[in-house]
Amino acid sequence: MNANFSFQSLATCSQTKARAGIFFTPHGPVETPRFMPVGTLANVKTITPAQLRDTGAQMVLSNTYHLHLQPGEEIVAGGGGLHKFMGWNGPMLTDSGGFQVFSLSEMRKITEEGVTFRSPHDGQIIKFTPERSIEIQNILGADVIMAFDECPPYPATRQEVEAATDRTYRWLERCINAHQRPDQALFPIVQGGVYLDLRARAALDLGKLDMPGFAIGGVSVGEPPELMAQIVQATAPLLPVNKPRYLMGVGTYREMAIAIASGVDLFDCVIPTRWARHGTAIVQGERWNLKNAKFREDFTPLDETCPCYTCQNFTRAYISHLVRSQEILAYTLLTIHNITELIRFTQKIRQSILSDRFFTDFGHWLTHPEENLQTKDQ
Amino acid sequence: MNANFSFQSLATCSQTKARAGIFFTPHGPVETPRFMPVGTLANVKTITPAQLRDTGAQMVLSNTYHLHLQPGEEIVAGGGGLHKFMGWNGPMLTDSGGFQVFSLSEMRKITEEGVTFRSPHDGQIIKFTPERSIEIQNILGADVIMAFDECPPYPATRQEVEAATDRTYRWLERCINAHQRPDQALFPIVQGGVYLDLRARAALDLGKLDMPGFAIGGVSVGEPPELMAQIVQATAPLLPVNKPRYLMGVGTYREMAIAIASGVDLFDCVIPTRWARHGTAIVQGERWNLKNAKFREDFTPLDETCPCYTCQNFTRAYISHLVRSQEILAYTLLTIHNITELIRFTQKIRQSILSDRFFTDFGHWLTHPEENLQTKDQ
Ligand SMILES: [Zn+2]
Ligand SMILES: [Zn+2]
Repeated sequence: MNANFSFQSLATCSQTKARAGIFFTPHGPVETPRFMPVGTLANVKTITPAQLRDTGAQMVLSNTYHLHLQPGEEIVAGGGGLHKFMGWNGPMLTDSGGFQVFSLSEMRKITEEGVTFRSPHDGQIIKFTPERSIEIQNILGADVIMAFDECPPYPATRQEVEAATDRTYRWLERCINAHQRPDQALFPIVQGGVYLDLRARAALDLGKLDMPGFAIGGVSVGEPPELMAQIVQATAPLLPVNKPRYLMGVGTYREMAIAIASGVDLFDCVIPTRWARHGTAIVQGERWNLKNAKFREDFTPLDETCPCYTCQNFTRAYISHLVRSQEILAYTLLTIHNITELIRFTQKIRQSILSDRFFTDFGHWLTHPEENLQTKDQ
Repeated sequence: MNANFSFQSLATCSQTKARAGIFFTPHGPVETPRFMPVGTLANVKTITPAQLRDTGAQMVLSNTYHLHLQPGEEIVAGGGGLHKFMGWNGPMLTDSGGFQVFSLSEMRKITEEGVTFRSPHDGQIIKFTPERSIEIQNILGADVIMAFDECPPYPATRQEVEAATDRTYRWLERCINAHQRPDQALFPIVQGGVYLDLRARAALDLGKLDMPGFAIGGVSVGEPPELMAQIVQATAPLLPVNKPRYLMGVGTYREMAIAIASGVDLFDCVIPTRWARHGTAIVQGERWNLKNAKFREDFTPLDETCPCYTCQNFTRAYISHLVRSQEILAYTLLTIHNITELIRFTQKIRQSILSDRFFTDFGHWLTHPEENLQTKDQ
């Protein structure tokens, strides 16, 4: 038990496994279900912490792999730790770097000890081990830190996935031993690929450990959406009911709604920020390209029901003009709106769970899977 | 006389021609001397109007040439005019497009009628005349609009400059006739190159006209700084004392101080925004490259005396990290600081004039000319 962290369930849906709760951290509470914006390099791209606060953001992510390469964890620590360095006083979470080491780095070599790779910055050989990942995350100082895991690619054979899942468990034991700070919560990650029995076994094994929260990883890596839904449905309910559950790298309306119906509480995704930088708005779950000619003379807000700074002050025509002019302000305004949009979606679901109207009001999101979106390549 | 505009002088320096005043416009007062940020394409690059307001900005510029090409003045008008379209409720000024037509466009052909050029967007042949420039500016709707002038290059012969200056005067008469909106103030522009007698004659000729304000153009086009100082000193004092004087395209500490000492009230310059986008901060008039190694572990604000959002919340080390990572937020934070910095400089000068301490406190800026900076190529 870690007294710095607790999860309080406030309501459960009578027709699904959806739940509304509060995850308490040393930097404040996180109301669940909740979408968490991604701030890879100690900033959410194109917006200030003040603008981020206004989106309704509570917990914000950052990334161990990227921060280790630039500016380096010692500089973050010199600046007073991640919160103070980037000016975000709310809850924070760092990814372990595992996913990036496996997906981004060159000259990668995996052994039982860890992973060696070549730094894309200066060509140096770097070694990440479970101990090193936790050490860096202890230095960075986020509220929630993630176990260093092996995320198998998709597709992969059952044998490959089983080996990665078993190694992830052994690495978790080393992460737990290396972890030094009681003001940080270490979350293990359920792997198991698309093999539901491997997923179930991993969830049950991890659930036996007294951890402050649990994550489901290795989804949204290219598998069909029906399969992702099955994975989440087969995994989330097996995790301890009194701890927060975090589905990594997922952040579309439908995927979140389906996962919430299986009892997931937290989400992150780079889609709202990345799409913004491509001139794309998310409106009521749809994807709008603001370069489209129909927006040129459309003097209404992106979403007239949206309380964000962008929708309160600017028209589609203005944002379209900025996108066409490649003005950076376009990306800022779209990022503000897109993050607000996804957080509002999870807030509305939370309200619906509290009044037990989730299935009534959001049931239509649970049926037709949408296109499978690659969301985890950052 | 245009009752929508007036200039009130509050104090004059006992040792120079510096003055402190207020220029009243339909969208509010402008305290002079004052630096005006540039928002070429209906936005000040990388910052929102809310962030712009916090820099202390009062009057903001935008540009007729650029807005005519994208999105087109009719779309701006459809959005309620420039103020409403871009979300800036304070005073605004549009440049006539003359400078950009002469400096940026291809296939340019100048006649007494006007200038034809090829649109860099779609290759179409476009004709700008004094009448057309004023018509576009009337449609855009800024508080202050500028006469369409011929800005001779530097160097140019006396004959060339005299011809351009005379044509500028003839074009001004056409601008005055074309101008339709009493809620907009039309400012004529003094040309005359580096020929002080031509400058003086132009200033006196324009001064005879009952215009709500006057601009000095055609400086900062490549001439040595001593020459620019001479031009301003030979021109500004000849303009009507009861009207605001605007020195176009100038915005370094020394150039502004020298011009203020000659009785100039308003300035604009793309330097603070452009430098910000190159990772450069302006601190106490100096130019700092945040990529410099000495900033990597410097956990102090850019300027601890600066009240801006950037200096109140972030360290040099953090901004250096963002610049090194090419994060857009770096440019936003530096733009906020740089604009605040230049506005504060003119605000401090204004206070010094009000207490007749200008020469005592700012006299050191009036002596050594700095390097000549190219500032008007936007
Ligand atoms: Zn919005
Ligand atoms: Zn500052």
